[in-house]
Amino acid sequence: MVLMTGEEYIESLRERGPLTIYLMGEKIKNPVDHPIIRASINSIVLTYGLAHIPEYQEIMTAKSVLTGNTINRFCHLHTGVEDLQNKVKMLRLLGQRCGTCFQRCVGMDALNAVYLTTYDIDKEEGTNYHQRFIEYVKMIELKDWVIDGCMTDPKGDRSKRPSQQADADVYVHVTERRDDGIVIRGAKAHQTGAVNSHEHLLMPTLAMRNEDKEFTICCAVPADAKGITYFYGRQSCDLRRLDETTEGDIDCGNPDYGGQECLVIFDDVFVPNERVFMNGENEFCGRLVESFSAYHRQSYGGCKVGVGDVLIGAAASIAEYNGVLKASHIQDKITEMIHLNETLYSCGLACSAAGQKTPAGNYLVNLLLANVCKQNVTRFPYEIARLLQDIAGGLFVTCPSANELKDPETRKIIEKYLVGTEETAAIDRIKMLRLIENLTMGRAAVGYLTESMHGAGSPQAQRIMINRLSDIDEKMKLARLLSKIEN
Amino acid sequence: MVLMTGEEYIESLRERGPLTIYLMGEKIKNPVDHPIIRASINSIVLTYGLAHIPEYQEIMTAKSVLTGNTINRFCHLHTGVEDLQNKVKMLRLLGQRCGTCFQRCVGMDALNAVYLTTYDIDKEEGTNYHQRFIEYVKMIELKDWVIDGCMTDPKGDRSKRPSQQADADVYVHVTERRDDGIVIRGAKAHQTGAVNSHEHLLMPTLAMRNEDKEFTICCAVPADAKGITYFYGRQSCDLRRLDETTEGDIDCGNPDYGGQECLVIFDDVFVPNERVFMNGENEFCGRLVESFSAYHRQSYGGCKVGVGDVLIGAAASIAEYNGVLKASHIQDKITEMIHLNETLYSCGLACSAAGQKTPAGNYLVNLLLANVCKQNVTRFPYEIARLLQDIAGGLFVTCPSANELKDPETRKIIEKYLVGTEETAAIDRIKMLRLIENLTMGRAAVGYLTESMHGAGSPQAQRIMINRLSDIDEKMKLARLLSKIEN
Amino acid sequence: MVLMTGEEYIESLRERGPLTIYLMGEKIKNPVDHPIIRASINSIVLTYGLAHIPEYQEIMTAKSVLTGNTINRFCHLHTGVEDLQNKVKMLRLLGQRCGTCFQRCVGMDALNAVYLTTYDIDKEEGTNYHQRFIEYVKMIELKDWVIDGCMTDPKGDRSKRPSQQADADVYVHVTERRDDGIVIRGAKAHQTGAVNSHEHLLMPTLAMRNEDKEFTICCAVPADAKGITYFYGRQSCDLRRLDETTEGDIDCGNPDYGGQECLVIFDDVFVPNERVFMNGENEFCGRLVESFSAYHRQSYGGCKVGVGDVLIGAAASIAEYNGVLKASHIQDKITEMIHLNETLYSCGLACSAAGQKTPAGNYLVNLLLANVCKQNVTRFPYEIARLLQDIAGGLFVTCPSANELKDPETRKIIEKYLVGTEETAAIDRIKMLRLIENLTMGRAAVGYLTESMHGAGSPQAQRIMINRLSDIDEKMKLARLLSKIEN
Amino acid sequence: MVLMTGEEYIESLRERGPLTIYLMGEKIKNPVDHPIIRASINSIVLTYGLAHIPEYQEIMTAKSVLTGNTINRFCHLHTGVEDLQNKVKMLRLLGQRCGTCFQRCVGMDALNAVYLTTYDIDKEEGTNYHQRFIEYVKMIELKDWVIDGCMTDPKGDRSKRPSQQADADVYVHVTERRDDGIVIRGAKAHQTGAVNSHEHLLMPTLAMRNEDKEFTICCAVPADAKGITYFYGRQSCDLRRLDETTEGDIDCGNPDYGGQECLVIFDDVFVPNERVFMNGENEFCGRLVESFSAYHRQSYGGCKVGVGDVLIGAAASIAEYNGVLKASHIQDKITEMIHLNETLYSCGLACSAAGQKTPAGNYLVNLLLANVCKQNVTRFPYEIARLLQDIAGGLFVTCPSANELKDPETRKIIEKYLVGTEETAAIDRIKMLRLIENLTMGRAAVGYLTESMHGAGSPQAQRIMINRLSDIDEKMKLARLLSKIEN
Repeated sequence: MVLMTGEEYIESLRERGPLTIYLMGEKIKNPVDHPIIRASINSIVLTYGLAHIPEYQEIMTAKSVLTGNTINRFCHLHTGVEDLQNKVKMLRLLGQRCGTCFQRCVGMDALNAVYLTTYDIDKEEGTNYHQRFIEYVKMIELKDWVIDGCMTDPKGDRSKRPSQQADADVYVHVTERRDDGIVIRGAKAHQTGAVNSHEHLLMPTLAMRNEDKEFTICCAVPADAKGITYFYGRQSCDLRRLDETTEGDIDCGNPDYGGQECLVIFDDVFVPNERVFMNGENEFCGRLVESFSAYHRQSYGGCKVGVGDVLIGAAASIAEYNGVLKASHIQDKITEMIHLNETLYSCGLACSAAGQKTPAGNYLVNLLLANVCKQNVTRFPYEIARLLQDIAGGLFVTCPSANELKDPETRKIIEKYLVGTEETAAIDRIKMLRLIENLTMGRAAVGYLTESMHGAGSPQAQRIMINRLSDIDEKMKLARLLSKIEN
Repeated sequence: MVLMTGEEYIESLRERGPLTIYLMGEKIKNPVDHPIIRASINSIVLTYGLAHIPEYQEIMTAKSVLTGNTINRFCHLHTGVEDLQNKVKMLRLLGQRCGTCFQRCVGMDALNAVYLTTYDIDKEEGTNYHQRFIEYVKMIELKDWVIDGCMTDPKGDRSKRPSQQADADVYVHVTERRDDGIVIRGAKAHQTGAVNSHEHLLMPTLAMRNEDKEFTICCAVPADAKGITYFYGRQSCDLRRLDETTEGDIDCGNPDYGGQECLVIFDDVFVPNERVFMNGENEFCGRLVESFSAYHRQSYGGCKVGVGDVLIGAAASIAEYNGVLKASHIQDKITEMIHLNETLYSCGLACSAAGQKTPAGNYLVNLLLANVCKQNVTRFPYEIARLLQDIAGGLFVTCPSANELKDPETRKIIEKYLVGTEETAAIDRIKMLRLIENLTMGRAAVGYLTESMHGAGSPQAQRIMINRLSDIDEKMKLARLLSKIEN
Repeated sequence: MVLMTGEEYIESLRERGPLTIYLMGEKIKNPVDHPIIRASINSIVLTYGLAHIPEYQEIMTAKSVLTGNTINRFCHLHTGVEDLQNKVKMLRLLGQRCGTCFQRCVGMDALNAVYLTTYDIDKEEGTNYHQRFIEYVKMIELKDWVIDGCMTDPKGDRSKRPSQQADADVYVHVTERRDDGIVIRGAKAHQTGAVNSHEHLLMPTLAMRNEDKEFTICCAVPADAKGITYFYGRQSCDLRRLDETTEGDIDCGNPDYGGQECLVIFDDVFVPNERVFMNGENEFCGRLVESFSAYHRQSYGGCKVGVGDVLIGAAASIAEYNGVLKASHIQDKITEMIHLNETLYSCGLACSAAGQKTPAGNYLVNLLLANVCKQNVTRFPYEIARLLQDIAGGLFVTCPSANELKDPETRKIIEKYLVGTEETAAIDRIKMLRLIENLTMGRAAVGYLTESMHGAGSPQAQRIMINRLSDIDEKMKLARLLSKIEN
Repeated sequence: MVLMTGEEYIESLRERGPLTIYLMGEKIKNPVDHPIIRASINSIVLTYGLAHIPEYQEIMTAKSVLTGNTINRFCHLHTGVEDLQNKVKMLRLLGQRCGTCFQRCVGMDALNAVYLTTYDIDKEEGTNYHQRFIEYVKMIELKDWVIDGCMTDPKGDRSKRPSQQADADVYVHVTERRDDGIVIRGAKAHQTGAVNSHEHLLMPTLAMRNEDKEFTICCAVPADAKGITYFYGRQSCDLRRLDETTEGDIDCGNPDYGGQECLVIFDDVFVPNERVFMNGENEFCGRLVESFSAYHRQSYGGCKVGVGDVLIGAAASIAEYNGVLKASHIQDKITEMIHLNETLYSCGLACSAAGQKTPAGNYLVNLLLANVCKQNVTRFPYEIARLLQDIAGGLFVTCPSANELKDPETRKIIEKYLVGTEETAAIDRIKMLRLIENLTMGRAAVGYLTESMHGAGSPQAQRIMINRLSDIDEKMKLARLLSKIEN
């Protein structure tokens, strides 16, 4: 058994060398204990903790194909379609438990994508990336580490290719080639959980052409490598974590758990050869991007469904507190929320069940259905959130601050007037309203909505894939056959 | 091997005793050769024919758990989640090949539902329905017969229970109990493929109460049993099959294939004991209805997807004929059609992959996800059809009749003015337009749209199940946990 | 008063010279008494009849600005925004009364568009089209005639301009210029009510370029002009009008009223100078097409709303017959149908209320809002129809033919089993079901759905206009102002 | 002329007696200069300022029917359908200029609703409320004051009537009747702009029954009346206004303008008789609520359209900065945003154009269409916001804080990596991203989304009205007529 506990994970973060992190204009010395960052760490802690609870071990852990060890599924190379489905179930469970983004799936998806791509490169090019990468995966499995799968470059002017940009640094690229390794420069944007990771696994952000070879780089660097700077994203309502109220963290909505997005700068970072997994083989970028995207688009059919369960529960709870849970229009809206949420789950399961073995030996989701899955994720969570706002009533955006509860006199007034049914404590009603604000406009909405839109690729990226992967010619033939057109 | 060919199937229909069939006010003596009926038979013929083609045998056939024989999958008791997924794939294939309803799945779904329910009844009540039914299934497997799964009663006043109706006959019920069997009276409405079947397998239409015991009947009767009358449904554009044009069947749109819906009257039909599988055990009606509905709601995640493929192909084809296939808005609409269609397929696969073994030993789809699947089927085909009408342009509803092609002079005018791109024959363009009419307003629209709405239960039926099957209390608990509400 | 009665209108059709009409492969000698054509005439008759009923005169008639006479509003040049709104109200009323397309609005819209465009041409080019056209309008007002506004050419290969087509005849064009007039050749497709008209008012189908001058033609020709051939469109379920049943026309659904779409061929038709209103002034095509389209896109915010009222009434009626009118989900769906329908009506009213006086003196609707109106019409009727199919239950596509009612024995069975609530005669329930079929798949669906999609321009045509007419630069400026971006 | 300037308005707020205001747990002594509150005041200032700009005076001012004075339209009793349309245009203009809620329309809507209701009461009951209210309106017109139209009570347990609540104070009610007036107790929730108002005009929150007479109260109280306490709502991202950065207020998104929502407590507030406009006449509550709601539902067809224009402008701007403005899918999404926004505007105009004169003499919007308008407002802004998030890319939720710009070194990095096209300053791109965050998740999203949902009544309230106001019986008659059903 090589499974860390949550406490060990936190300890392991402390053991990293010092990181350069900026947040709200300040250099953060001790990220682990910073209240905003800690909430995002707490979400990842769940990925360790639940793996130790017997009832969840079937979906939280797996048997390594490399070592035979029981490992955390987040470090796992998928060995079958059931494995792929278990991944989706694990992500749903975690979404339910933290109500936000737990950040660790992007590494799992990167591991599997790089694994199958390095195999293909080696076979074609006679390189030895795959063996290197197997060693790397073994190390990760053993250490039970958090990997930040780094794909998205800042991209500058989107109408231009990497090699056409005014400043090449808007795409990560090689600035020096040495005998013992390479030096890279650039940045990766929107890096989920970057500060909470042990490693970054960098991948090219799009299919590269021959003129873009210096941008065709896949490699791993430690989170505390020299030359890395982290800019912590400022997000909706994040400062509420800094409140100090005797009532605890009511205004936060979800006081324990948060997500994390960073801009990560790589300023001439050295990468030794054994950590380089692709270096100029641009014709394989498409394969890597396509497979990583597909794995990650599948992921959304799990994690967002779990968060969706929380929205549904919040809808039913606030309706109960308001005394309207049995109203037919409320029930109908809750049913619609469930329907949409389970449709997403169906898409997550389906692209898994239709997965196939790759030449490298791990399993890849069905590419078409994974893109379909994610495309739905760019739509339904918005409608689920809209329905939750409908059921909630307007109080979640007009409610006084919980700071008013500190003074017994104002507290009395708040409790008197914000009461719901007699069975409900006004404070509980406020807590639920703040959770709803958190989920639909606040910190968790970043993950549930905007990340659902853009994470793993923006909607148009999926549409391009859906169009390309569907055999339209075959369908045209079907139509001609039935109408008896002879050519 | 016990697989009939298409020809043998047609022959087997002729070998039935005479049926009383009314169509357009006339008694039909020879249904097999009637042009309207024959088109619906042709669709079923595909279910036999494709089972003989090696490349399709994996999905068209299965190994019987009762006999070990290789049988047509339509006669099969599902033995695993892969089996359930293969069913969906088979239905998609058939939908692609006939572009309409092929009528045979309802029997397969009834076989599986009655199988698992009779097991439960016997276990609880000490009856021997299950053994009787196993013998029945063996016979069906061996003969490779078409079963009409008969569920929907006419229902009269929907605000009243069966026992409250002015005329009890609007629900099938027992009118006489004899030592050797029972006599039943009533009707089943919307019976897909009834005239093309060898057998009717009757099931109660809803959960029955104690006062409804005489309506709690499940039994099998031959299609040519004494006392049965068939009223063939009159449907959109069905008479186009009667056209005689030298140009063949252009105005039909889909000249070879059609569906079939009948009102079937059972006027004191005798059923011997060995064909009775439920008789008054009303507390098991819910189980039977629920499982049959779930199987059948899964089915729509296959067959309608296949027909959807034809709509997509027709969209791309007509766009090509019109010279606009590359236009970005056309490509975007085609992408949307594919996306919606594959979402339905995902739902069909997902409820299969999440299926479970029943106490009886066959596999049942996931009930919640099967209802979610069908709920989407009540929506997306309408949007897919709307998009097809958008892409088609208006000509498919303003086009002159193909009868104008008989006279060379008018034919010349039609060909001159209804031309598209130079590569396209005007006649081919007209054929494609008529296929589009057929699919979105004509004969096949009955199956692709209205049947998608009401087949296997109307939308509200799924919503009730979705609400009931989703554990809302558990979700409320998740929301309370995150917002730290303590009770 | 110059208002014809319905009878006089029918008589006036008989008085036309012989027309060459093909329908279902036959030459129709007497169109007025052909059952299919007569139904479409009946719809137009309403436009005459209601103008004589005092309570409708305010919206059915108007005071001519040319003569001061009280005239039928269909012949009227709009004199204010109230007039424009009254047009919408008139169209809604007529849609309610015939449940289908009454065909006469396209002429009204063409009159107003040609009126304002000829004024502009004359002013710029020194021509005298406008005075010619005033005389023409006076004649139409006086005779109270039906005008077929002819815009859409067959268009051949849509990727090519008119002058690039292999056969120039797929766009109407001048083949000869004579001192006393011009000769035109070509065709107009999708001509609503063409056979029921007294006149065709031809307009160019799109903005023309300098090389397309011979295609830039606007002129009027009598319906019985030499060289015109009509091909009557074959449409969903049209043959049901030919049924003869003792039960009347039950299977028709809407036995009295229908629409009409024709392909009209102009084979070297001579047009005298006084009937030519545009002849090569291609730079004004945009104005003509844009204004005609806008008027006609407004129209759909009236007529389709009226038909929508019938769908809503049919939904409530069949729910009542089935005994479920009070069910909350039924009421909610009916509410949604009303909501969507009244949104369309709001759009019809709004583009009218925001209309403006043209230089020519008549009023033009707000172009942006008229396009928005029509864009919604390409969507909501499909959803309204879907909801009606939902509420209806499946019987409207599985119901036996009314021909079964001729035989008393089968009639008894039909009446027994197709009963609804005790208050409802089974025959009435069948009639309502057939109306629902007619409206959502049958003859009227051609007008309510496909015509809503493509009439007055396909959806993409509106999107192009919406994009062009909205001042995006101004909106960008607003955003920059608020975020304090200084350039 | 009685038009205040913005400066005079701010001065007039300072001249009020001291208010008891709680915000974030603190008592606010000087609300006018508090940065959070000041932003909301700035929005109202626009309603004064634009009235002095000649080009806007036609829509910003009106001629009083009571005095003939030119007054601010916000104090105006509508005198015609053009007036009603001008109101909508004014609200759109203001929404464009502040990009959030400007808070003043609720008072205008209350004035008009109370005006017409007091007339009806007096006529029926012989009271003299109407004359009292005319005097009140004259005073408001003259002083050009901001009125807070107070309708929504906290409502406690929504399954119970006011008189059934455990604590009656959750609905405002009379606690003492004196010769010179009444004493009221209770609270009003979600009070937009309450702290920025001069007066509160209280109205009952729903139709009251005979047992609810003490809750049937309509009256006016000054904002600084004794016994009133304000609890300022804590809202998404509101604390960003407290940031101090050398870069100004970048993280705010919209640094100048904000909205305001308060919970207002009335603790035994005395109201003299001349300010009481309804006192126990419960049978008129329905009329007051219905008309106020309709006016206010119309309002949303103006103000949210104006804010929608800002979202569209932000979408086009960020697309331009990213270098993708010309991409066809971007243009298509922008077109869709415009289409939806103009549909809302059409609904705002239509219910105005279809307005009618009341017995009291002012004009009331069409009730059905006003409800239809608001129902669309509960949907389309969410889709417009979703499309904006789609076009924006993910950076608006992952962007580092503008505080990083204070240090030249980190500033250089931010500017380097967050660059878009060469023409765009990185800082401008960040500003636009923060505006997008503000509009879709931050402070302005409260107004643009949640207020669109619940302001002027939650969606179900409109559905009940739409169902009730549409003459369904008449529509059923239409359907029966066409299908020839004779009863």
